[in-house]
Amino acid sequence: MDNFNFYSPTEFVFGRGRETECGRYVRKFGGSKVLIHYGGGSAVKSGLLTKVKASLDAEGISYEELGGVQPNPRDTLVYKGIDLCRSRGIDFILAVGGGSVIDSAKAIAMGVCYDGDFWDFYCGKSRIEKALPVGVVLTIAAAGSEGSGNSVITKEEGMIKRGAGSDNIRPRFSVLDPELTCTLPAYQTACGATDIMAHVFERYFTNTKEVEITDRLCEAVLITMVRETPRVIKDPNNYEARANIMWAGTVAHNGIVGVGRSQDWNSHGLEHELSGLYDCAHGAGLAVIMPSWMEFVYKHDVMRFAQMAERVFGCAMHYDDPESTAVEGIKRFREFLHSIGMPINFAELGASEEDIPVLVEKLGVGDGKRWGFVQLSAEDCAEIYRIAARASL
Amino acid sequence: MDNFNFYSPTEFVFGRGRETECGRYVRKFGGSKVLIHYGGGSAVKSGLLTKVKASLDAEGISYEELGGVQPNPRDTLVYKGIDLCRSRGIDFILAVGGGSVIDSAKAIAMGVCYDGDFWDFYCGKSRIEKALPVGVVLTIAAAGSEGSGNSVITKEEGMIKRGAGSDNIRPRFSVLDPELTCTLPAYQTACGATDIMAHVFERYFTNTKEVEITDRLCEAVLITMVRETPRVIKDPNNYEARANIMWAGTVAHNGIVGVGRSQDWNSHGLEHELSGLYDCAHGAGLAVIMPSWMEFVYKHDVMRFAQMAERVFGCAMHYDDPESTAVEGIKRFREFLHSIGMPINFAELGASEEDIPVLVEKLGVGDGKRWGFVQLSAEDCAEIYRIAARASL
Repeated sequence: MDNFNFYSPTEFVFGRGRETECGRYVRKFGGSKVLIHYGGGSAVKSGLLTKVKASLDAEGISYEELGGVQPNPRDTLVYKGIDLCRSRGIDFILAVGGGSVIDSAKAIAMGVCYDGDFWDFYCGKSRIEKALPVGVVLTIAAAGSEGSGNSVITKEEGMIKRGAGSDNIRPRFSVLDPELTCTLPAYQTACGATDIMAHVFERYFTNTKEVEITDRLCEAVLITMVRETPRVIKDPNNYEARANIMWAGTVAHNGIVGVGRSQDWNSHGLEHELSGLYDCAHGAGLAVIMPSWMEFVYKHDVMRFAQMAERVFGCAMHYDDPESTAVEGIKRFREFLHSIGMPINFAELGASEEDIPVLVEKLGVGDGKRWGFVQLSAEDCAEIYRIAARASL
Repeated sequence: MDNFNFYSPTEFVFGRGRETECGRYVRKFGGSKVLIHYGGGSAVKSGLLTKVKASLDAEGISYEELGGVQPNPRDTLVYKGIDLCRSRGIDFILAVGGGSVIDSAKAIAMGVCYDGDFWDFYCGKSRIEKALPVGVVLTIAAAGSEGSGNSVITKEEGMIKRGAGSDNIRPRFSVLDPELTCTLPAYQTACGATDIMAHVFERYFTNTKEVEITDRLCEAVLITMVRETPRVIKDPNNYEARANIMWAGTVAHNGIVGVGRSQDWNSHGLEHELSGLYDCAHGAGLAVIMPSWMEFVYKHDVMRFAQMAERVFGCAMHYDDPESTAVEGIKRFREFLHSIGMPINFAELGASEEDIPVLVEKLGVGDGKRWGFVQLSAEDCAEIYRIAARASL
């Protein structure tokens, strides 16, 4: 097992109706003047924003509002948020929404405390030393940003999507009410589930041996997702299934299922260029990329893929032909994604095979290799995109 | 799923040689004058204490020392520690040892900030509102106290063992170096492993339905323990196995495997009276009690015990006779405990069946019932002790 630090200081406040307590938690974690940050109209229409404001009012906490966060959140709104926070003396940012809103809130939080351009953190020019405290009221199980120290922002100029990370931007508290997710359309629910599974798979495929505990924790989350996702697709109001998925989404990405070993984030990397170029949902892009990445790399460690096939998808282990089990597991994963309504190739996603050179160019691999479970050259990445373009059941 | 809060703010610093960094973490979490709290001579003899002091010296942090913590740590030393902290202006307590040392450190930490008798917290007279910060350098994988908000102390007068808990006493950081556990005798290693498994089982047997994610996380830890414990019994220097067990011990008790549902702590409760009366190792007492408790309660939910048997111990599921699978699982658990050198009945533990009325009296159930998976009357507790007294393979 490799040496590691695990630090997840967020207080998770889980369950029915817990959003009415967010004022109390803002107070607990030192907020007195809040920026409520949110996306489109659904937080307003559903009455959630009214509840959040009432909760802040009850604690005598003042607030400003900034809505309009888009999926694949943009730098332009972040700059606006930073200016607003500075001019109004904001000391706490409350994100009401999903991963895009939380990531935008984190970007504002770090930007307010930094003299330079916040984009410095996303292009690797500077490290996040300080940030305003962030709280969350989560409305979709997907990104895991409610428990992570990460943020992904898209620079509108050139649609460049990049990530930044630090323990300093981990939310102080996150309210997780599964009931808030019952009104989500099936497509968004499935995109979220795909993202959650991808967060685990990116940690599951490792070159570090004998980290049994992390393997088993990964499988715990994956098995849960395989069971619970079809249940919510069939019955959107199934609270128990929604609750299992919501908590699985947090556990998948707060770090606990990835400790002590190397990871692989190439599927996320390859997907970022897809959603950057086509503005498609991140989960949908992952559904197209991840099984294709698996097909490209599985020979690197057939037994690990066979283990996944057997333990996660219940495939029979063929002891005389482990490769057939490994391949069957990847096939089952793609079938599972299709069964919950996800696209499985470029056409279904709205992408074009002709754009592959553009996608590869934007990845910026050059003559080098992308680090991971299997190191990938530019041509390897092109091949994975080609597999994804032509994939079928 | 029941509503819950999950809050585990401890920074875990895991791996080879990490104890040399503890000065830096004391500084990070605000300590400037430290009480180093430890047990017997092993922390001194092994050179660990010297390393810890060098690490504090390197940061210019001053310290006092208080050794002598016994297994089943006593109130008498806690009082001494509280006086010492007050007279020397201590602002941070660093526990170097296992669960007993950490629990004693937590008791001192809460006592220093409280005007009354610290025992008030353990007999339910008062709530822990404030405590000095505590840090940990862990030397045995067992109690999980390095990541928990709990402490168990024994009142010397009458040998009464009681627990107290609060998020305020969760360690700020815990250094976990698996190498420090390689020199542990096999018996202590096995006691620790039993305690870890018990922490998970106490959370596994629940009356709340459909919390798939928590079930699977529990099983992840249990499967890991079943695999890794025999490996370290056979080869005490197996670092990878030691590492898996050490991290499993933390995950087992920081709360993550118990969220969203009812739990059962009756095996711990019944064991506390055994180690209180006989001063036996907590893990050894649990090895005797827990399978006996299982035998007494399993009919309450045969399918849950069958699930445990199949998923944790790999028993064949007999679909036409699930009870036989359930019973087989309990049998396998007891055989497993025996195989790692644990006692399985009163005689092997050094306890006497004649004392059962005394044990039951000390439990203080009276005419009421102990809350849990199955509620237990005084007579039920006596019967579990009788099963434990006479157990065999």
